[in-house]
Order: sequence, then C-alpha cells, then structure tokens
Amino acid sequence: MMRTRPLKVALLGCGVVGSEVARIMTTQSKDLAARIGAPVELAGVAVRRAGRVREGIAPELITTDAAALVAREDIDVVVEVIGGIEPARTLITTAFEHGASVVTANKALLAEDGSTLHEAAEKHGVDLYYEAAVAAAIPLVRPLRESLAGDTVNRVLGIVNGTTNFILDRMDSTGAGYAEALDEATALGYAEADPTADVEGFDAAAKAAILAGIAFHTRVRLDDVHREGITEVTAADIASARRMGCTVKLLAICERAADGRSVTARVHPAMIPLTHPLASVREAYNAVFVEAEAAGRLMFYGPGAGGSPTASAVLGDLVAACRNKLSGSRGPGESAYAQLPVSPMGEVVTRYHISLDVADKPGVLAQCATVFAEHGVSIDTVRQQGKDGEASLVVVTHRAPDAALSATVEALRNLDTVRGVASIMRVEGE
Amino acid sequence: MMRTRPLKVALLGCGVVGSEVARIMTTQSKDLAARIGAPVELAGVAVRRAGRVREGIAPELITTDAAALVAREDIDVVVEVIGGIEPARTLITTAFEHGASVVTANKALLAEDGSTLHEAAEKHGVDLYYEAAVAAAIPLVRPLRESLAGDTVNRVLGIVNGTTNFILDRMDSTGAGYAEALDEATALGYAEADPTADVEGFDAAAKAAILAGIAFHTRVRLDDVHREGITEVTAADIASARRMGCTVKLLAICERAADGRSVTARVHPAMIPLTHPLASVREAYNAVFVEAEAAGRLMFYGPGAGGSPTASAVLGDLVAACRNKLSGSRGPGESAYAQLPVSPMGEVVTRYHISLDVADKPGVLAQCATVFAEHGVSIDTVRQQGKDGEASLVVVTHRAPDAALSATVEALRNLDTVRGVASIMRVEGE
Repeated sequence: MMRTRPLKVALLGCGVVGSEVARIMTTQSKDLAARIGAPVELAGVAVRRAGRVREGIAPELITTDAAALVAREDIDVVVEVIGGIEPARTLITTAFEHGASVVTANKALLAEDGSTLHEAAEKHGVDLYYEAAVAAAIPLVRPLRESLAGDTVNRVLGIVNGTTNFILDRMDSTGAGYAEALDEATALGYAEADPTADVEGFDAAAKAAILAGIAFHTRVRLDDVHREGITEVTAADIASARRMGCTVKLLAICERAADGRSVTARVHPAMIPLTHPLASVREAYNAVFVEAEAAGRLMFYGPGAGGSPTASAVLGDLVAACRNKLSGSRGPGESAYAQLPVSPMGEVVTRYHISLDVADKPGVLAQCATVFAEHGVSIDTVRQQGKDGEASLVVVTHRAPDAALSATVEALRNLDTVRGVASIMRVEGE
Repeated sequence: MMRTRPLKVALLGCGVVGSEVARIMTTQSKDLAARIGAPVELAGVAVRRAGRVREGIAPELITTDAAALVAREDIDVVVEVIGGIEPARTLITTAFEHGASVVTANKALLAEDGSTLHEAAEKHGVDLYYEAAVAAAIPLVRPLRESLAGDTVNRVLGIVNGTTNFILDRMDSTGAGYAEALDEATALGYAEADPTADVEGFDAAAKAAILAGIAFHTRVRLDDVHREGITEVTAADIASARRMGCTVKLLAICERAADGRSVTARVHPAMIPLTHPLASVREAYNAVFVEAEAAGRLMFYGPGAGGSPTASAVLGDLVAACRNKLSGSRGPGESAYAQLPVSPMGEVVTRYHISLDVADKPGVLAQCATVFAEHGVSIDTVRQQGKDGEASLVVVTHRAPDAALSATVEALRNLDTVRGVASIMRVEGE
C-alpha cells in the first residue's frame, strides 16, 4: 500500500548530473513512487546563480540559499552533486543535523573526511549513500559493501578515471604524445579546462581511498594513497609497452598484504599485458576487478562518468534512502572495524620495467646486473640494444618491494656507465 | 556497540555450497560479527543422510529433520541450499511462518513460484534474499534490485550457465562435436551425470526469469521464458559462425519492447560477433550485460558457479538478513508493480543465420529470395556455394519478428529446390 504524503528531496547543484537527476525524478515519478512505496517530490534545488531557466524545474524551487534549503525540517533526503570540500561538507553536516539522509557523488570529500560524515550520519540516525562517487553507475560501492559483506576482499584493481584512460588509449592507438592526446581529450569534452585532478591522479586516488576503505573495513584517506599521474608518460613508454606485449593504463590498486595484516592503496600508470581484460578497456570507460577469497575474480565494467550514468547511481541511492526513511531503518553504515594499517608505497610488492641509456661497451650489463642483485631485486628479462656508441638496456624485474626497486634505480643512476634512466614503469596484472 | 546474544542460522543442505557456507561462518566468525553488529551462530544443519563426519561442524548440530529445524522459534535466518522444488518450498514457507528470514540459492523454485515466496515473506515481515540463485557471486540481483532502482532497464543479455559455456567454448576452440565436448565437461566436473538442466537450457531459463522479473518489475515465470538448449548445436554451426566472424554462445536475453509496453525473456544458442565482449567469455565463466536508460551499458563478469563463489553470495545475503533482523527492518521485497505482459517468442525481433542445402541450378537463389520477401523478411547477406550438383545457400537476415523468420524457414522447407535446412541460428549482440 502506498503512502500518499510525498518524501521530499533537496537537490544541491544543478549542473550536468543535477539536472539529469531532476529530469528523471520528474519523468519517472510514477516508477520511483512504486519502487519506493511513496511519491517522491523535488522540494528545492540549490544553484550558484539563479535567473537561468532550468528546463523541467519549476522556477519557485530554485534557490541560491543552499544552507537554508538543507536546514528545512521537511526535507527527507538531500542529494549533493556540487562536489569539492566546502561548502559541500557543511551542507551535508547540516542536512544530517536536521534529520535528512544524504546521497552524494562527492569523491573528494569522502576521501578527505568520509569518517566524520559517516559518524555524523550515524549520530543522527540517517543514511549516507555514495555509489555515484566511484565509477558513476557501475555498481561498486554496493557490491563491496553488501554483496561481498560475507567474503574477504584481497584486491581491487581497476581503471577508475575515464579522462586518463581516454588519453592513454589515444596515445596507444595513434602513437600521439601526451600533450597531443590531452588536447584531443579537451576538445572532445573528456578533459576539463584544468585537467589537474584527472591527469595527476587525484580523482583516481580519491576513488581508490573510498574503495580500499570499504573493501578492507579500514579507514583509508586520500593521503594514504600513493599517487602518480600520467603527465610523464611518453610515446616511447607506450612503444616500449607494445614491444613487451603490453599497454599502459592508469590503475588504482588496493591490496591486502599477503599476511593479511596491512593494506596498500596506490594510483599510478602501469604496463599491463594486452591479454589482460583491462587492456581492452577503451576510451573513457571504466572497469574494476575485485578479487575475494570465496567469490574469486569479479569484473565490473561500464561508463565511469557522465551526467546520465552518474544520475543513475544517485537515483538508485535515492530510492534506498527513501525506502529506509519510510521504514524507519538505516542502510549499512561505515565499516572500519578492521583498522588495518595502510602501508607506504615502499612496501608494495610489484615489478618494474626500466629503460636505461648506457655506454656501449663491454661489462655494462654485468655492472647493472650487480646493482640489481645487491638490492635483492631479481631480473626477469634484459634486452640490450646498441646504436652509434650508445646503447639502451631494458630490464624487467621479478616482483620485489617498491622501496628495493626504487633504491636500485637510484644506484643505477650513479653508475658512470649509465647515461640516464629513460623510463621506469611498474608492470601489473600478471 | 555489539549485541552479545548471537543470531542463529539454520543451514539446509551441506553439499558443495552448504559445507563452504558452514566453513566460512566458522573461520570468519569475528569478521561476520563485526560486519553484522552481533555474533552469528550456526544453530543446526539439515542433511539428507546423517552419520557422515562433516569437517568443522559439531556433530550435535547435524539433523535429518529439516522440518523441525526450520520450525524452531530461535532461528533468525534459514539458509536453503538444497535446491529443487520440494521439500525446499515447504521448508522455506515454514521458516517464514516461524519468523525467520531466508537466504536461498534456489533458482528453480524462484523461477517457478517466486511470487508466492515473496508474498509469504512480506506477510510475516521477514526477508527473502537470493543473490546466489543467479551467477553465484557475481552481483546481479542486488545491482538490478537496488543500484538500478532509479533507472529503466531495457535489456539484460548474458551467459548465465557455465556448463554450456564450457561445452560451446570447447567446441569452438578444438572443433569437437557436441557429444565429445559434453564428455570432456563431464570428466572435468563441469557437467553433472544428468546434464539435462544445463544443456537443455532449464537452468539458464530459470535465471532469465529471475533477472527479467527484477529488471522489469514484472512477474516472469519459467514458463514465460522461451527455451532452446545446445544439444542441436553442431560443429558445422560453430564453423559457420567462425566464417561470419562469430562464435556461438547460449544466451539469456530479457528485453523490454521498443514501445515499453511488454517484455520478452528467452534462452537459446546464438551467434555473436567475435568482437563482442561476451565472445571472449571462456570456459565456465559467466558474464551479463545490463543496458539501462541512464546508466548505459554495464557488464558483470566472474565465476558463475562453484561452492566458494556461491557461498560468497549466500554469506553476503546472510549479513544483510542478519543486519535487518537486528534493526527490525526489511530489505527490498518483490517489485512487480509494472505488470508488463510477457510476449511470446514470435514477437521477439531478431536476426537469423540460415544454412540451406539446395539444388545447384539457376533460379534457386531467386526462388528463395522470393520466399523471404513474401514473409517481409529482409536479407542482409547471401553466400552460395556449389559442390557436385548440390549447393548450399547461407542467408543472414536483417532484424524481423521471430514468427516471420520461422514462417520463412517453414516455407523454404516446402520448396522443391530446397533439399534440407542444415541449420538455423539466431544472430545477436550487434
């Protein structure tokens, strides 16, 4: 039986995502009501600049006073799609204090201060949902938080940033350099005017922090995530990867240590074999592998960004938050009981692909190999190539702690016979 | 804060899945308690034959009296992994009547009589969870039911039976015939001694019914699902598919009609292009595409069967059911408000690949083409091949209603110049 008094929703932000949320709430209102068990009504939309006509939204719903909107006692759920730390954090906190549940797509805020938000939601007996914060409509938060709640997740590995995947895919398929591929991404709307958050890996790192936190039942913040962007990736790196039967992807990798007592989270470009399913994730798509002890290896794939896919995730959470409001219950809150320490990058065990410019004379390979051995790093393959008195040495290592690998590189740099380190890249997915 | 009185779980069935559920409940008890907010305890295990030692399960928990176990008033959640219609249905219903929530992996029962079970759960204010019924640990039920609850799903298309995928994959990669590939699947434990449920498509059809029901908010029963198995697929079909740049997969396809007013659900072998992601799903893996209006195209991939993956799904649901018990709430129940009619196979719009043995004389192609035209079926490509007075004609059609396509094939059979219809297969995924 359906309740007739509608649930009231306040929408903060009416950009690409917000306007799509409002549109679907209007056009699909009957379906949403049937699925929730009560009608749901847009009670207010906070925007930065009033005056613009917003198609499908009654003008009297528009306000520039977000603080007043979230403090209204009649609001059941606040949807926050402004992004950024402030004023989002204050608005969400105010919403909780006034008894509203919150659905947010704000990865930056969650990675910065998710625990405080979870605690506030808990204190006020309301929900905090955020499926849209990671990979838009690809279900990841809910599967990790609920479907795998009885399993032990050991690894989350994936492509969680569409912009950088588009750029690397273009570099790989056309041979373009980074700058050229970025220009194309910008022209096509895949990269923002200031692409820093994407290309420097901040966006992916925030998502890695969120995923690691849920997967390992441990608080993981943005600062805990080792982060390297793609700005240093060259056409030569991509060509090297090709010669190894690999491609280069920006990966987010969250791992439980072999002994189970600590976890790591990192974002960096890496070579992965062309045979790995992530190698065929093209353009701005996202894909994430989750490895759990009982479930095995699961993959989730789809468009990881965009107004409609993000709105889909927001609306799924909105339905859940509304159902809980109706039944007087709460969804699962933060689960951080495991409190595992987050180890630094140096303790991550991985492989390196190192390309060195060396003097073309006898004994250089032996000298380099000694440096690897001294640092306890075992070599998998070496390829030596001479050209006009100079030579290049391409070394792929076996798995070793990242600290040992980077110390090896430092020592190589100090060899007289090593003219320079042309590139270093980790190798994953094998 | 954690409750100290444990939640009590009754386990029905202690085979491949049940023993793994029991094992994880024991070895991961601390984690489960932390995630649920209360300890969870195995209170009884119903088996068919007592006397066998079950590793890790206290002998006093074992009983052959399942009916008495589910009627115990102290049981909070019943996990049913016996399978089949009876006694599972009666046991689940009894559990509901005694206030227990139920977690089941029973696809056959859900596809046969899911609505009755949902109504009983609703009536007694308890939960019915069944993620494990479809594709084991691959989250599909929860994403469709919750993550996409604010979206409009138009299509679910996937490989949901590992046994048949293993057989077809073997036929494709080794050129083996059906019987030979089935023997290999049986020897390796991928096929049961009586493989009927898998190879005739019953298992996949049950899953299609469950997925269609959730995706379209409509009751869909096993009888509503058009079902064709793989027993008629020949090495020649696979070879034909290869020549077209395709492979053959047993697909489950649930679609909303273009006008949105009806739905269809079907399971049959089909040719799909090698470039389609489902073409690269090998061995016994499962993969499902979900297409929704706002979310776009999502894919879910993983092991679709096996004791551990199925146990993972069961335990995720067990955690949810226990959390709800603790908070006195319920998870989402059945959503069948849309009540869309399920159209028969004849109304499905698809494409056919038809291979005809014809007389090798002039005018045959024209004659056949006329038959297609008379039935309103447009031809995409024709390949004619002559050999020793006989010839073969391979026709691939454009999209047309299945009824028109099968009427065309019937009319072709009646032509004097058509010696026989060597094979008919639908073409999907384009």
